[in-house]
Amino acid sequence: MIWVVGAGICQGQITERGRELLRRADVVYGSRRAFELMNVEVKEKRILTRFDDSVFEEIAREGAGKEVVVLSTGDPMVAGLGRRIRGIDAEVEIEPGISSVQLALAKLKVDLTEVVVVDCHARDFDSSLLDFLRYRHLLILADRRFDLTKLGKRRVVILENLCMENEMVREDFADSAEIKSDYTIIFLEKEVVE
Amino acid sequence: MIWVVGAGICQGQITERGRELLRRADVVYGSRRAFELMNVEVKEKRILTRFDDSVFEEIAREGAGKEVVVLSTGDPMVAGLGRRIRGIDAEVEIEPGISSVQLALAKLKVDLTEVVVVDCHARDFDSSLLDFLRYRHLLILADRRFDLTKLGKRRVVILENLCMENEMVREDFADSAEIKSDYTIIFLEKEVVE
Repeated sequence: MIWVVGAGICQGQITERGRELLRRADVVYGSRRAFELMNVEVKEKRILTRFDDSVFEEIAREGAGKEVVVLSTGDPMVAGLGRRIRGIDAEVEIEPGISSVQLALAKLKVDLTEVVVVDCHARDFDSSLLDFLRYRHLLILADRRFDLTKLGKRRVVILENLCMENEMVREDFADSAEIKSDYTIIFLEKEVVE
Repeated sequence: MIWVVGAGICQGQITERGRELLRRADVVYGSRRAFELMNVEVKEKRILTRFDDSVFEEIAREGAGKEVVVLSTGDPMVAGLGRRIRGIDAEVEIEPGISSVQLALAKLKVDLTEVVVVDCHARDFDSSLLDFLRYRHLLILADRRFDLTKLGKRRVVILENLCMENEMVREDFADSAEIKSDYTIIFLEKEVVE
């Protein structure tokens, strides 16, 4: 059996259910960062530096006979591992965790039902998504490759490195701002059409 | 100081950070259901049966001198208390929790960045939202007043009472389905345009 468990993104953000799954597991896979977010004793720790097909095949093989947990920073279903793991040939259950999206919404005091969340990690921003601004705010998960000029001269809130040492939240205009972190969230306000 | 803390929606789903905030608080407000989801000793428990303006005024007054926690089932920023509390005149911080949306996505194995989340609790469904189906799946938070005929003959997945005793997940067609719970999530798949 394979459990993909959300580790949250701040220290101590794992849920009690998540912690219990980790304690019971025979093997726990995760990035160094995911393990650093929590203080849990596990039977066998496997630190991953990459998540490619061969890793997922290994996890699937092992999950056939053991209780395997795969840690996912944030929530497995928010631009996370869950989507990648749904393709593997094994029984997989997902245990949610707190995502950077939730942290951003908490800081902005904006509700999830007021936004559309866009994943631009390692992928280009499709400008047609700006059409959503007639109905919703946009919350874009970005890395430093993100091309801000695609957002025009719009006012943005840039949330960087949430819950990390160098966390920063700032307002700016897209045509003059710069993205310096691969852990960036860009907030664009809904545009009221007259 | 006022903290709005997400309680999650399943037993033991509170985060370690949330639990710590509850332990330290002078007063904790919450619904009976929110308190039932956790096993935490608190100094002073105030069970709320309604969340109206007078309650928020009381909380704001008390938060001026004490450490006050307001429990919100799920996540405060997912069709939650956070949005209502942003209007009150007091310093408010939000601590995220696991929402029913995350649980639904975990069951459906669908990523948050593939959906648009719509809040139809105690409000009508705006049919123009169906336009989103060209780009995204829809995840609708509904109660038993929800008018399914507004979704046409589309295939839906209905997730009812997640993490409750009578949890049920079923596939159906909108024109023949029936909603029996006020804790319902309706999933509509994105429509591929040829």
